[in-house]
Amino acid sequence: MPASIEHVSIGTELLLGDTIDSNVAFAGRALSEIGVRVERRTTVGDSIAEIQDAIGSALDRTGVVIACGGLGPTNDDLTRDAVASLLELPLDFDDSIWQELVGRWRKFGREISDSNRSQAMVPRGATVLRNRWGSAPGLWVESARGIVVLLPGVPIEFEGLLREAVIPRLREKLDSAPIHSRRLRTTGIAESKLGELLGPLEEQFAPITLAYLPDQGGVDLRLTAWQLDEETAQLKLDAAEQLVRHVAGQWIYTSGEKDLAVVVLETLRANQLTLATAESCTGGMLGARITAVAGSSDVYLGGVVSYANEAKQELLGVSVETLERHGAVSEQSAREMALGVAGRLGSDCAIAITGIAGPGGGTADKPVGTVWIAWFDRGAVNAKRFGFAGDRSQVRERAVQAALAGFVGLVGLVGKASG
Amino acid sequence: MPASIEHVSIGTELLLGDTIDSNVAFAGRALSEIGVRVERRTTVGDSIAEIQDAIGSALDRTGVVIACGGLGPTNDDLTRDAVASLLELPLDFDDSIWQELVGRWRKFGREISDSNRSQAMVPRGATVLRNRWGSAPGLWVESARGIVVLLPGVPIEFEGLLREAVIPRLREKLDSAPIHSRRLRTTGIAESKLGELLGPLEEQFAPITLAYLPDQGGVDLRLTAWQLDEETAQLKLDAAEQLVRHVAGQWIYTSGEKDLAVVVLETLRANQLTLATAESCTGGMLGARITAVAGSSDVYLGGVVSYANEAKQELLGVSVETLERHGAVSEQSAREMALGVAGRLGSDCAIAITGIAGPGGGTADKPVGTVWIAWFDRGAVNAKRFGFAGDRSQVRERAVQAALAGFVGLVGLVGKASG
Repeated sequence: MPASIEHVSIGTELLLGDTIDSNVAFAGRALSEIGVRVERRTTVGDSIAEIQDAIGSALDRTGVVIACGGLGPTNDDLTRDAVASLLELPLDFDDSIWQELVGRWRKFGREISDSNRSQAMVPRGATVLRNRWGSAPGLWVESARGIVVLLPGVPIEFEGLLREAVIPRLREKLDSAPIHSRRLRTTGIAESKLGELLGPLEEQFAPITLAYLPDQGGVDLRLTAWQLDEETAQLKLDAAEQLVRHVAGQWIYTSGEKDLAVVVLETLRANQLTLATAESCTGGMLGARITAVAGSSDVYLGGVVSYANEAKQELLGVSVETLERHGAVSEQSAREMALGVAGRLGSDCAIAITGIAGPGGGTADKPVGTVWIAWFDRGAVNAKRFGFAGDRSQVRERAVQAALAGFVGLVGLVGKASG
Repeated sequence: MPASIEHVSIGTELLLGDTIDSNVAFAGRALSEIGVRVERRTTVGDSIAEIQDAIGSALDRTGVVIACGGLGPTNDDLTRDAVASLLELPLDFDDSIWQELVGRWRKFGREISDSNRSQAMVPRGATVLRNRWGSAPGLWVESARGIVVLLPGVPIEFEGLLREAVIPRLREKLDSAPIHSRRLRTTGIAESKLGELLGPLEEQFAPITLAYLPDQGGVDLRLTAWQLDEETAQLKLDAAEQLVRHVAGQWIYTSGEKDLAVVVLETLRANQLTLATAESCTGGMLGARITAVAGSSDVYLGGVVSYANEAKQELLGVSVETLERHGAVSEQSAREMALGVAGRLGSDCAIAITGIAGPGGGTADKPVGTVWIAWFDRGAVNAKRFGFAGDRSQVRERAVQAALAGFVGLVGLVGKASG
């Protein structure tokens, strides 16, 4: 069998845009690690005919389909029925699943609904994949037309079942050669500029391929070795990485999956430095990003969200004179915020952000997107003015990214790229 | 022409899981407002054959396709070529697009790359949709096989072009009757329990349909009137909403799209109350969620991220005795944090969160997921212990949701549902 599959997501809510489907991204990452390619992904609504058409033609193309969604207890959950009838298998009631469901509900002090009985129905001959994270079990169904794996759509359940139950079985079934890839994360340079620098090198990489993955914080570069053995793949990836670094190294902050916050924490930890934050327009996003990293508490002491001017005075000691003369969004305020929070918490380093995220509050001098960031490092303070493009949420995200980049020496670049 | 379309997303990075595709959700919402249904969505990689197969069969089914991605300047951007050849149209170089690109780059103080020239190529006869948010213009291509709209994959560009250029043209072309829908947002009740309560009512709603949309914070209920005129639709939606509220009203915090943070801010604003926050394990997420709402500054004064114990003492005045005797994750600490931040900032109300988000730090008494939340309201403090399931990020998100729910009277319910 070829090492490729298709993914089918089921749910009218996905097409209506009520829910963003993150499962296919998770599956893509987890499957590529074992050398399985997701060739195509199809999303259809809660309709028996649509589900059958999508799964049927995906089976015809690759022979293996992972479908998610539509296994819940309500009337719009049709996947189980659609697949059983597509594969011409009867549905049997499985008492052991039912007993497990009853027990699960009892554990949470609640009584199970009769509507959950549908979740105990199993296409004859299917393998039940136990769901430790929720109620609907996964189902591994083999038939003359191929393999259909049914998984719940709730991300934590989908991800848990995929990792624990589906990947090991796929490894056995599929004759896959792992895909090896490496990600180089950049910030502060536009995708087209990277393309111009790196495009001429792509021939030298071959057979390694290069993909550009832009997001809010920067552009990730993904180098991929397809169907090569481990040793050859790593050698060729090393060579490609070296070429890339030669021309674009100054914008690369990590090789791997690490978030910029992790790189900052590691840099500070290696130097035995502690960090504090003072945030105005980002309202806690910088703290949230840093503390999303498990184990951040040995570096990060805490911070202040000084949204109102009184908070800047009371919690950070920003002077009334500074606020009146220069305003809350100014170099002076940013500097005093950084010094203030470092002083209060006794940290070695501090980051302060103050700006106008919009949509209101902009002026001719300080339009929406104007952000001052100050970095305090053992006595010295630097500050820089940025003009970020985008809506409220983009300005805030870009400010956080630039604030972090400042601690790994990329701040000038980030400022430049943000125009 | 029928009021339905298909969506095709292009990019190997989407299948590999490097990027989450939020465009289809945005398109689903925007199109359903004008009565256009996205019937199906297909994602394929950067391959001419795959792009042509996906767009070709989508055209055969609905006659109208919105495709996004693959319009960038690098070698893996193939959509323009694939579609021109699928529809048998030559590609022409459009000098006015090129001049606009050159000007755009100059504005940001940079020189354009020659690789951007591909972005000025246009299938003959296509309408160019000007892109104010980025470099690649959108393209509206009509042919004997149907309409293909090409949009860039970058969300801000996709969204802007869809709203400004695509929706008005689709309105003209498609004979659509609007879909009317209404969302009732719940928190604190499981999907299956809601299904049990509401399932028996679904017949009474008809032709209104009901969808359950679970996410981290709760379950949204979506009532939809398909292809009805405005007045009939609203009457039938009113009747359905009344039935739903009759049995599930106690879990509903809003009718509409509002985030729970918006509901909290509005409640406080209506009572002329101000708010402050003190966060430990959530590290700023609560502040970030509140300040994501434009105009939150009239209610929200600011807060403290007291990650280290010293921050709890220094910035919030939590007593050493409390920390030593009860620990940082305790009712006493949560109460003192709430009182402390309200006192420092002079706010009427305050929320404090302290807990163990994991993966480390759990004990037998206080396992990972243990969170104390305290609410201060004009002199009175209430506190509650929660035991949230999930990983670090889920525990943190659930804590923020429960903290907000506490201010609209749903806190007992949230605690119960979180098990």
